[in-house]
Amino acid sequence: MPEFFQVLPPDDARAQWLEHVTHRPEIEAISTLQALGRVIAQAVTSPEALPAFQRSTVDGYAVQAASTYGASDTLPAYLRVVGEVPMGQASQVEVQTAQAALIHTGGMLPPGADAVVMVEHTQPFADEEIEVLRPVAPGENVLQVGEDVTLGAEIVPAGHRLQPQDIGALLALGITDDLPVRRKPRVSLFSTGDEVVSPDTQSLQPGQIRDINSSAMYALSTQAGAEALLGGIIPDQPEALYAALVEAFETSDMLVVTAGSSVSARDMTADVINRLGAPGVLVHGVAARPGKPTILAVVDGKPVIGLPGNPVSALVMYSLFGVPAITHLLGADVPLQVRTHARLAVNVPSAAGREDYVPVRLFERDGETWAEPVFGKSNLIFTLVGAAGLLKVSLDATGLYEGSWGEVVLF
Amino acid sequence: MPEFFQVLPPDDARAQWLEHVTHRPEIEAISTLQALGRVIAQAVTSPEALPAFQRSTVDGYAVQAASTYGASDTLPAYLRVVGEVPMGQASQVEVQTAQAALIHTGGMLPPGADAVVMVEHTQPFADEEIEVLRPVAPGENVLQVGEDVTLGAEIVPAGHRLQPQDIGALLALGITDDLPVRRKPRVSLFSTGDEVVSPDTQSLQPGQIRDINSSAMYALSTQAGAEALLGGIIPDQPEALYAALVEAFETSDMLVVTAGSSVSARDMTADVINRLGAPGVLVHGVAARPGKPTILAVVDGKPVIGLPGNPVSALVMYSLFGVPAITHLLGADVPLQVRTHARLAVNVPSAAGREDYVPVRLFERDGETWAEPVFGKSNLIFTLVGAAGLLKVSLDATGLYEGSWGEVVLF
Repeated sequence: MPEFFQVLPPDDARAQWLEHVTHRPEIEAISTLQALGRVIAQAVTSPEALPAFQRSTVDGYAVQAASTYGASDTLPAYLRVVGEVPMGQASQVEVQTAQAALIHTGGMLPPGADAVVMVEHTQPFADEEIEVLRPVAPGENVLQVGEDVTLGAEIVPAGHRLQPQDIGALLALGITDDLPVRRKPRVSLFSTGDEVVSPDTQSLQPGQIRDINSSAMYALSTQAGAEALLGGIIPDQPEALYAALVEAFETSDMLVVTAGSSVSARDMTADVINRLGAPGVLVHGVAARPGKPTILAVVDGKPVIGLPGNPVSALVMYSLFGVPAITHLLGADVPLQVRTHARLAVNVPSAAGREDYVPVRLFERDGETWAEPVFGKSNLIFTLVGAAGLLKVSLDATGLYEGSWGEVVLF
Repeated sequence: MPEFFQVLPPDDARAQWLEHVTHRPEIEAISTLQALGRVIAQAVTSPEALPAFQRSTVDGYAVQAASTYGASDTLPAYLRVVGEVPMGQASQVEVQTAQAALIHTGGMLPPGADAVVMVEHTQPFADEEIEVLRPVAPGENVLQVGEDVTLGAEIVPAGHRLQPQDIGALLALGITDDLPVRRKPRVSLFSTGDEVVSPDTQSLQPGQIRDINSSAMYALSTQAGAEALLGGIIPDQPEALYAALVEAFETSDMLVVTAGSSVSARDMTADVINRLGAPGVLVHGVAARPGKPTILAVVDGKPVIGLPGNPVSALVMYSLFGVPAITHLLGADVPLQVRTHARLAVNVPSAAGREDYVPVRLFERDGETWAEPVFGKSNLIFTLVGAAGLLKVSLDATGLYEGSWGEVVLF
């Protein structure tokens, strides 16, 4: 049996499992405007300096700083206004000693000038003449060439997941296309169980239930940056499951099997995964509730996950293992999952020796975020509707007290 | 002048502005599997009870509870095993007094049985006979019909933004199509400024800069659940801006104008917005940094925003006003923006009387989240690359101390 541990805490299980996941989707080139949330596969360097010219950071007058030295309210410097700098063009005027040119925020510093006096520190004196009431130093109120980014600088590192501001920054440098990102991992999702039927079945027979898990994992995978694929519902027959997994394996970057809920069905999943290839099942069971009988496997460097059939367990375990595996496949630097903190509205009991993940609703009270457990039997999917995330009760805690702060992994 | 206040704190400005936003995009019907992140427009009620039959929640034996009363390790109850309940089908066997039927988790309770004994509390005794070592009460280890959701119950309220688990829950009830959601708001984005050119301009002339703001807002709007539309770059001419806004207004749910950076350009934006219709500009300036000269307007119930040209200011202000406006247009119950808390790695100075929003990087130390300001002049877009969010320094604070907890609005 290739399993090298039986029941580990979730963080240890995840770390040891992902060490074996060496497969990566290939790199593809896409349009920058469509790259939100995608992960950069190769560091991008700047093709030019930004700004490309000296820019004023205020509305005012471009001057030679030396012309303003010693200026004050009682002893202003008098400067002749020799022109106005047009926006988006080089200035036609040159600024010499005791001269000034009207300039707007973002305007290009005219030749001869080395600083800008804010308009608030000037007042009109005569036609085409101003009083300057405060001195400026050379470079004051001026953005220098390359001050935002220099030519050749690494602007986005490999592994960076692109946020809205990054899209703007790349386009500022004219990088509109051919952005090297990691292809979205293809995650193939299977449900097993003789009792499970397709969600579009309108009249259920006695004993049948519609498949919840494939579609919930589909949504979670999509949200995490993967391309989710519905592999279908497989009967509780090892050969049928094996055939389905083998067929999907080559074109997928990750396989997920939601087991039938019986013990025999879970054992079937582990056996079939082990037949797929080496090293096979590495973790069979994690010290967490709900979702203990989770299977973490690796086949030819690709992650394969077996989840319990209970939809709440499956969702919690997929948040703990499936979503981080997608991040890992993408080589992303930051986890997509957001963790926040909230005060507990009630006592939350737990048992030492396992991590509990309790679905919670969040609300605001007196400017603080509070968490309230969503009660219900752990296998009821509708208890999760409206839950904002999962409160983590750590391995060594026997519960959390009302009013104390806890960590919540957001959905 | 229709403006009824000049400079308000951001929260007050937003609340008073959005009160006037009465427009809503229409309702459309979409496929449930594609509805992740969409906002439900009309409450959805359950077309059936879930589960539709009594289900076992454990692996064990379906029994009449009365057959087990008084059972213990020393005095077991002896029951005859009369069959096995197949998964996904009604049982062909009936369970009578002193009988048991093997049942798997999720199996349908056979006729005659009213409880399930966990397999761990039984042991084989003879061929087709078991010992039961503990009694069960009627209903024990059984999920009753409608215990997850009853027929006709409201399962998803209007205004709910659909999370992964909700997709699964809706499909569990066979609701695969025709889900009533609010159409994505169409947000038309304009940049103005004679110095601003398209990002695909390869050779910049002196004084020109590429448009950053339209694409950063495009990404933020998409992330917030809107359909973003690039309206183009408009020269600093009131008639050109007016013509562009009038043309976009009818087919848009929100307009956003990023102003040129000069004072005159900002005034032009306000004047043009007021010409579009009533009530026009409601807020001209918010007590926040960066981004004070922000314009919040309403025209015929639709939100119109004028942002400063500085890309950092524009991004911060769009997070504070544009993203909540999209949530408001959708009628969504929860803001999409995630706020988290972090400890400050350094002292962060501020000035009382305005809210400061400081871009921060987040990192983990000793199991806690810490925030470190990203330093740089406030108009450098590359300071924001890698920033995880904005640290809020409230109106009455003159700064935050190293080690104290602060609120971070995540991008």
